[in-house]
Amino acid sequence: MPADLDLAVNCGSSSIKFSLYSASSRKLVVSGSANNVQGDSPAQYEFTFQRDEGKENKKEREIDGKTTYEEIFTKILEDVTSDEVLGKEGKTRIRLVAHRIVHGGTADAPIVIRHGDKDEQATLDQMDAVSDFAPLHNHHAMLIVKECLEHLPEAYSVLCFDTLFHQTIPQYRRTYAISQPEHKTPVPLVKYGFHGLSYANIRDQMAEQLGKPKDQVNLVVAHLGSGGSCCLIRNGKSVQTTMGVTPLEGLPGGTRSGTLDPSLIFHHTPDCSTTVKWSGRDISKAEYVLNKESGFKALCGTNNFGTITSRAFPSEGDKEQPSNEDHMSSRLTYQLYLDHLLAFLSGYITDTLSSPEGRLDALVFSGGIGERSSRLRADVLARFRFVEELASSGGGLDVDANEKGKGRRRITREGSKVPAWVVETSEEDEMVRMAEEALQEGSAK
Amino acid sequence: MPADLDLAVNCGSSSIKFSLYSASSRKLVVSGSANNVQGDSPAQYEFTFQRDEGKENKKEREIDGKTTYEEIFTKILEDVTSDEVLGKEGKTRIRLVAHRIVHGGTADAPIVIRHGDKDEQATLDQMDAVSDFAPLHNHHAMLIVKECLEHLPEAYSVLCFDTLFHQTIPQYRRTYAISQPEHKTPVPLVKYGFHGLSYANIRDQMAEQLGKPKDQVNLVVAHLGSGGSCCLIRNGKSVQTTMGVTPLEGLPGGTRSGTLDPSLIFHHTPDCSTTVKWSGRDISKAEYVLNKESGFKALCGTNNFGTITSRAFPSEGDKEQPSNEDHMSSRLTYQLYLDHLLAFLSGYITDTLSSPEGRLDALVFSGGIGERSSRLRADVLARFRFVEELASSGGGLDVDANEKGKGRRRITREGSKVPAWVVETSEEDEMVRMAEEALQEGSAK
Repeated sequence: MPADLDLAVNCGSSSIKFSLYSASSRKLVVSGSANNVQGDSPAQYEFTFQRDEGKENKKEREIDGKTTYEEIFTKILEDVTSDEVLGKEGKTRIRLVAHRIVHGGTADAPIVIRHGDKDEQATLDQMDAVSDFAPLHNHHAMLIVKECLEHLPEAYSVLCFDTLFHQTIPQYRRTYAISQPEHKTPVPLVKYGFHGLSYANIRDQMAEQLGKPKDQVNLVVAHLGSGGSCCLIRNGKSVQTTMGVTPLEGLPGGTRSGTLDPSLIFHHTPDCSTTVKWSGRDISKAEYVLNKESGFKALCGTNNFGTITSRAFPSEGDKEQPSNEDHMSSRLTYQLYLDHLLAFLSGYITDTLSSPEGRLDALVFSGGIGERSSRLRADVLARFRFVEELASSGGGLDVDANEKGKGRRRITREGSKVPAWVVETSEEDEMVRMAEEALQEGSAK
Repeated sequence: MPADLDLAVNCGSSSIKFSLYSASSRKLVVSGSANNVQGDSPAQYEFTFQRDEGKENKKEREIDGKTTYEEIFTKILEDVTSDEVLGKEGKTRIRLVAHRIVHGGTADAPIVIRHGDKDEQATLDQMDAVSDFAPLHNHHAMLIVKECLEHLPEAYSVLCFDTLFHQTIPQYRRTYAISQPEHKTPVPLVKYGFHGLSYANIRDQMAEQLGKPKDQVNLVVAHLGSGGSCCLIRNGKSVQTTMGVTPLEGLPGGTRSGTLDPSLIFHHTPDCSTTVKWSGRDISKAEYVLNKESGFKALCGTNNFGTITSRAFPSEGDKEQPSNEDHMSSRLTYQLYLDHLLAFLSGYITDTLSSPEGRLDALVFSGGIGERSSRLRADVLARFRFVEELASSGGGLDVDANEKGKGRRRITREGSKVPAWVVETSEEDEMVRMAEEALQEGSAK
């Protein structure tokens, strides 16, 4: 059996998602994730796999707390490529590994590496230099790339960057109003934007759903997870996004402050430019505080948006009622988050409606928060009801579809000028698509 | 003759505006300004005054470059209160001095001080502690307060804070998503907002113009000067503004970056939390760079918006054509500024149109840039044309009123859903009104 499988690896700050696809059919063979990787409690991972058509098997493992990020991945790889799962060809069936890399720096295409390539080390070094700009992500992902090069020497590793989708943002939006730095920086200090794999996947899903060519869809996408961002897509291309030179800019998140007065940190933490060790790397104290000790967690003690919503808006029937303090701080967190989100979405939606064509194909909610919080979606759409009223469109929120529907669906009525959708994104699908394309382009050269 | 005059002093980072009003009629008796105060070239000041009804006199002075900020003010004060201007009663005619103080910290009302008051020194110290949060302004203003207390010992000094107007901003908009600082800060690290004297004056002017009670006007105001901000006014009260715990947040300005990725400065200036001396005070290197070495100046070499516009959009008839480099960098600066401005205004305008009442009384352009740049106003209104189209209102930009009108005027057609105005603001009028009121309330106690 030749190498017939594509592996997608998606490294978060404390999670690893992995999927094995059939290279020919793009069907999922294995799908799983590890959580609490380098968390406070022991990591665990689980995955499902199909050997015989129709029969789904599941494995779960708990791992000793002292295991490093890369050791956990190696265990997953052994497990996923074992006889039981892939048969005796095991790892040799893996043809390529698509890695999600948050920050691609100035790279304008995915990078393909194979163990033993003459520029293997140079590429790894170049990407690691960018790790300072995505301190919660890049370094971990690059460790896993190295593991794959070593343990899967025959497979191609393809670096799929979250920044690639945003290369079409115009210069006046990529530029910051600050002097040129006095020293050379690893990459220019401009807006890069992130979550590009997710945005590309949503763009493709919506083009398919609406029956339009990809380069003709006008979308405003809210990718709302523990780290969230929004993207303005015009004719299929990103023309604006909320994250910046790093993922810190824009919306607040689970432990991230998002945009705030750039002077604030100097009064909050006067020695904030001194460096601290984080996950083996030096980062400024400021970036640690703003990325890890801020956001929802700082405001109300939890970074779980579901918990925040249920504490902020408890039902009378709930067995456990939140304390008054939790109720008030969760409510403040919800209001603050909604307000920041509305500020960005208002800009993007008026930008679209005022464009020469004036047509918004969809406002898309995605990511854990975007897919799950019907309240947040309803509150966002309330902001744009005036558009439906001015236009007498008869459109607006479809309460049933919003609250009860499942999966990809429209949640506004027919005729809405701001038609809203919920879309489950798949970064892994996009990574494998991108990696396959990069490999084919490479061999065509 | 009893003390019959009110002096308003408005200290900028490199300018001092001063006006003397008749306390009873509120008519201007003296009006002038000093420029290049602590600039690269020698400072100068000029003022006009009326002794006999109808006859206007003018004085101009150039000052040695080494004169300090407070010495320049003392010279102005001597000149303005000379026999020639005020008659032989001179300074004793000054009843109160209204000072514009940018940052009021937690003060919830203007503060009245007179030389020899038991809490004189405590008040001065308390205000100076806040100077760190408005490094370009507060310290200078407090120096001038001290000069006035000394040289005008009979007059009341009233501190009129730019932050007062924003006390009505709701908590979820004042709060930053960051942990509590580990040390005690001079004031809580929340959004204060600035330009409040200007916003209050504009609110009052618009209420008068529209024939409405002050507490019933819904406005979105763009106060656009070398430092600019926007304000969302609902029922006469500020409910949101773009500046933050310091004036740095929000729009870019002449030399100010405005909002940007809070991580950026740590890559731009790695030792940015070390302090540097600025105008006799210690501030972080970051705050110096972000407030003084950024903005328009960093992008295109000038902080003069008129120059930027004429380089970005040269007329064919212009004698001097800009170099290609100046043309391109000015164009980028204009586009960047417009884009940031539109992002904020979109949020504020959709917030107003989606409110229960759904009525925007006026979008107001003010400040040097707001009053002078008809191009910028036209570009802003183009963004909201879709509102007029959806509503078939027949409204939109009135090109003649925008380009040719003078003074306070509407620049959109009858029936517009986004009716726009140009309003010349007067912080000095508001300062004197506020100071008189504070004095009366004080004596009523």
